[in-house]
Amino acid sequence: MAKTKSLCIVLLRLLALGATTSAAVVMATSRETTFVLNLPFYAKFTDSPAFMYFLVTNGVASIYSLLALFVPSESWLGHLVMALDAVVSMLLTSGISVVLAIGYVGKKGNPHAGWLPICNQVPKFCDHVSGATIAGVVGAAIYFVLHMYTLVRTIKPLLG
Amino acid sequence: MAKTKSLCIVLLRLLALGATTSAAVVMATSRETTFVLNLPFYAKFTDSPAFMYFLVTNGVASIYSLLALFVPSESWLGHLVMALDAVVSMLLTSGISVVLAIGYVGKKGNPHAGWLPICNQVPKFCDHVSGATIAGVVGAAIYFVLHMYTLVRTIKPLLG
Repeated sequence: MAKTKSLCIVLLRLLALGATTSAAVVMATSRETTFVLNLPFYAKFTDSPAFMYFLVTNGVASIYSLLALFVPSESWLGHLVMALDAVVSMLLTSGISVVLAIGYVGKKGNPHAGWLPICNQVPKFCDHVSGATIAGVVGAAIYFVLHMYTLVRTIKPLLG
Repeated sequence: MAKTKSLCIVLLRLLALGATTSAAVVMATSRETTFVLNLPFYAKFTDSPAFMYFLVTNGVASIYSLLALFVPSESWLGHLVMALDAVVSMLLTSGISVVLAIGYVGKKGNPHAGWLPICNQVPKFCDHVSGATIAGVVGAAIYFVLHMYTLVRTIKPLLG
């Protein structure tokens, strides 16, 4: 039973590693050049601090996910990982939130502020960013599950 | 010792209640009217879904903080609160992240996307939003501390 649980956690960590790495790579390769009124218009992820922040959070989570795979769960480092899962989970949530906020303006614009949508001009760039966001959401969801599992597992004996 | 710890938690919850309620109220009252080229320009929090989301997350956290004050810590509900602290902490982090992302564009603009800053036109509105964000950061930081305390407290016996 304990072995099955450990295997599940390793699998979840591998999935999280895949999701966060994909999110970082897809975001890093988001670029498109188009012409607006015969003038070139370049779009790349470095144009927005929000996209760069998303890349950093997913990069950090990828490295952490990789390192956490080699930590024995019953050691003191294993318990530190349980606490760090909470921090990484929050970091990923924050990264997704900023991308969703800016991505929404990119897609719909904000007429009150006079910010026009840009996704009709650079649809491929926006699709790339959307793909990175979906991968990021999967990574964050896995970390949320890992974190909730830790909480329930540690709180359960207190209830008993 | 146990009593002092409980008192500290109640104090932290009261502070969190104050911070999240202030954040929600200050955001809800953010509005300004100004004239640009003799045309009226209204700014209010409902202009941006990000600001509305921030208001909702802080409103939910305020209600939760109030209810959590009356839950005995050693009951099963008290342990549910320990898990819910994690969810509220993430919700607040997400709310702050979207406001910071949109607030940054409001202050600095984004020349790549052609989004102009608006804070020079509606400075009072921006100050209000900044105030709400600071209160929101305080609330989220308190929830982070509460959540980390729970984690350390529950993981500690495992280390022993």
